[in-house]
Amino acid sequence: MQHNSVITLTTDFGHKDPFVGIMKGVILNINPFVNIVDITHEISPQNILEAAITMEMSFESFPYKTINVVVVDPGVGSDRRPILAITDHYYFIGPDNGVFSQIYRLRNETISVVHITAEHYFMPDRSSTFHGRDIFAPVAAWLSRGIESSKFGDPINDYVSIQVPVPVITEENTVEGEVIYIDRFGNAATNIKAQTIDDLFKDKTTRRLKVLAKGKEVPFKNHYAEAEDAGIYSLINSFAFLELFVNRGSASSSFGITVGEKVKLEAG
Amino acid sequence: MQHNSVITLTTDFGHKDPFVGIMKGVILNINPFVNIVDITHEISPQNILEAAITMEMSFESFPYKTINVVVVDPGVGSDRRPILAITDHYYFIGPDNGVFSQIYRLRNETISVVHITAEHYFMPDRSSTFHGRDIFAPVAAWLSRGIESSKFGDPINDYVSIQVPVPVITEENTVEGEVIYIDRFGNAATNIKAQTIDDLFKDKTTRRLKVLAKGKEVPFKNHYAEAEDAGIYSLINSFAFLELFVNRGSASSSFGITVGEKVKLEAG
Amino acid sequence: MQHNSVITLTTDFGHKDPFVGIMKGVILNINPFVNIVDITHEISPQNILEAAITMEMSFESFPYKTINVVVVDPGVGSDRRPILAITDHYYFIGPDNGVFSQIYRLRNETISVVHITAEHYFMPDRSSTFHGRDIFAPVAAWLSRGIESSKFGDPINDYVSIQVPVPVITEENTVEGEVIYIDRFGNAATNIKAQTIDDLFKDKTTRRLKVLAKGKEVPFKNHYAEAEDAGIYSLINSFAFLELFVNRGSASSSFGITVGEKVKLEAG
Repeated sequence: MQHNSVITLTTDFGHKDPFVGIMKGVILNINPFVNIVDITHEISPQNILEAAITMEMSFESFPYKTINVVVVDPGVGSDRRPILAITDHYYFIGPDNGVFSQIYRLRNETISVVHITAEHYFMPDRSSTFHGRDIFAPVAAWLSRGIESSKFGDPINDYVSIQVPVPVITEENTVEGEVIYIDRFGNAATNIKAQTIDDLFKDKTTRRLKVLAKGKEVPFKNHYAEAEDAGIYSLINSFAFLELFVNRGSASSSFGITVGEKVKLEAG
Repeated sequence: MQHNSVITLTTDFGHKDPFVGIMKGVILNINPFVNIVDITHEISPQNILEAAITMEMSFESFPYKTINVVVVDPGVGSDRRPILAITDHYYFIGPDNGVFSQIYRLRNETISVVHITAEHYFMPDRSSTFHGRDIFAPVAAWLSRGIESSKFGDPINDYVSIQVPVPVITEENTVEGEVIYIDRFGNAATNIKAQTIDDLFKDKTTRRLKVLAKGKEVPFKNHYAEAEDAGIYSLINSFAFLELFVNRGSASSSFGITVGEKVKLEAG
Repeated sequence: MQHNSVITLTTDFGHKDPFVGIMKGVILNINPFVNIVDITHEISPQNILEAAITMEMSFESFPYKTINVVVVDPGVGSDRRPILAITDHYYFIGPDNGVFSQIYRLRNETISVVHITAEHYFMPDRSSTFHGRDIFAPVAAWLSRGIESSKFGDPINDYVSIQVPVPVITEENTVEGEVIYIDRFGNAATNIKAQTIDDLFKDKTTRRLKVLAKGKEVPFKNHYAEAEDAGIYSLINSFAFLELFVNRGSASSSFGITVGEKVKLEAG
């Protein structure tokens, strides 16, 4: 029995219903010593892209061997498969609908995926509508107790990936991306990453970075408090994404920025 | 000191105020080794029926000996009694206002109820408005440390039960029930249970189950993804309740279904 | 390694984003045996006063040596300092912007404050926008492992306090205060404390307490259920603040009471 293993939960269950608490009950029944951590339960209902980006932002902050359970599952009860994905240091359990797409795209990581079929690790009276309770929670708990991943089923290679918008190099020194995530404060993260910027503008010392959104230049800053006024600014955020923000305000509501908004980056 | 006992919390406190965190602080002061699990804190304010149904859906997923604390307590500070209810495998602590009504109605369970009066287990400077902190949390923590339930007070038999709507057999082969719970996705659970259906339609192989709501037939499915369109369908949900649903949509908002909506079941 | 130390988290991060879960991942990476408790993550965005009052209401319910982390941080990335405040029995970690103002004002407590500068306790690749993850969480985790507080930096005396409205004695036997906190139920806590009332109305037995708000007398009760109707009443709440309430209703929405509403107390 490992006393300090961690299971994280990411769902679209919200906080009104007892569903998340029930999953924790199932887990503690199997492994009373595991640490269960909520990542979020406010994924927009059945929004697989949002779940995939949330996982990408989160998993590396957790200890090695953490088991990340994601239940955003519009196809529950159909023939979509339950899977266990394994990277060099982490485990991921959920439906095979693309919620782990950004994990599959990690550079320098070995990925293997198991189709979970070993029903003796499921709840005995399982339903067709709540696999979070009946399959994913108990499988995560048994895995946290040290059951080998190969015991849960056979490896597969045809696991599902969803398209996540990627930035496009339109001309030399120009990248076009878009907003992919808006946080609680109204900050709008784009799919343009610090690494992309570094790759493109190698000769950084002599060039000026120019960010364009909503048809005009968005000045680039190092942190929120550097913004001189309540206008729209940009920075590299804490997940290394280019982000549009308003200091002490909401870029999303003040400037009508939503997921999908185009953002351009130029070397001046 | 038991290292793996579990205390669950179900309240109408919401997430804005520090009330839930404070209850956890009180518990950890008395038993630092207990596992505290949130079931929900978004019970509609002072809605005892919703709390009772939430408890019914949740408690069996937790390990034996779990202590379930419910604080939905419009009569706090008045002479309503604090109680400890004990079933064969679980404990329930809260106000004597009916929040455990569905526990009292369990078949095949021995129920005993104690009126909590042993003030030396309460917080010393207790208030008349926050018994979650001052009575229920410390009593749960002491119970989790192994204090015998009889130490908290004397048994009572006149504990309060609220009326929960039950389905009615109106003619042979016809049951009339109603919606009793709507979840985050807009799925509408009724008070008609799988067991009721089994009891009524014993000769299942030759009969066809017909569900009627909103004046028309609601086709019966095995899981959400079986629905052919965005219309209203029905299934037996993961808590064995007959449920109205819309696949990848909300039965509640799309079809104006609220708690109390009548649902009829016929053997065709 | 202390197995039962507690770290509390109070932020304005909300529940939609993975930020809180990420902080917990960072903490568990450093101390897998710590107990992490959420106080609230629904502080109004960047509302330092609300954070300060929430801390005041909460900290004493937790075990001695609890480490309270507050991340309400409009100046993140600027030159505002990260601090560790130490009272006789508790630790407080957060930005030096006044979130601990009510802790500094505690009577009978020794306060010392350290400017956190020991970067080897920070995350190695820290950002300028998420000090919750990169500075406050890891410092709290190291402190929970027993690192001495003096190792995190040098003591300072010029830490920031914000103004919190205090009640004013306008004439003999009259105190004027205001609403400073409205809870989920619409109860409106004022800055007039039980202690203030005791100090002012020493000759309690012969005097009548008269509470005035919204231009009329608000009858004083001992608990919510004592109110005879749906009108506005007052009591001493569970945090020893004078509070305006409506029994089974919302004083805030029914009577338009918001933070800042004036409340007067007279000895009749």
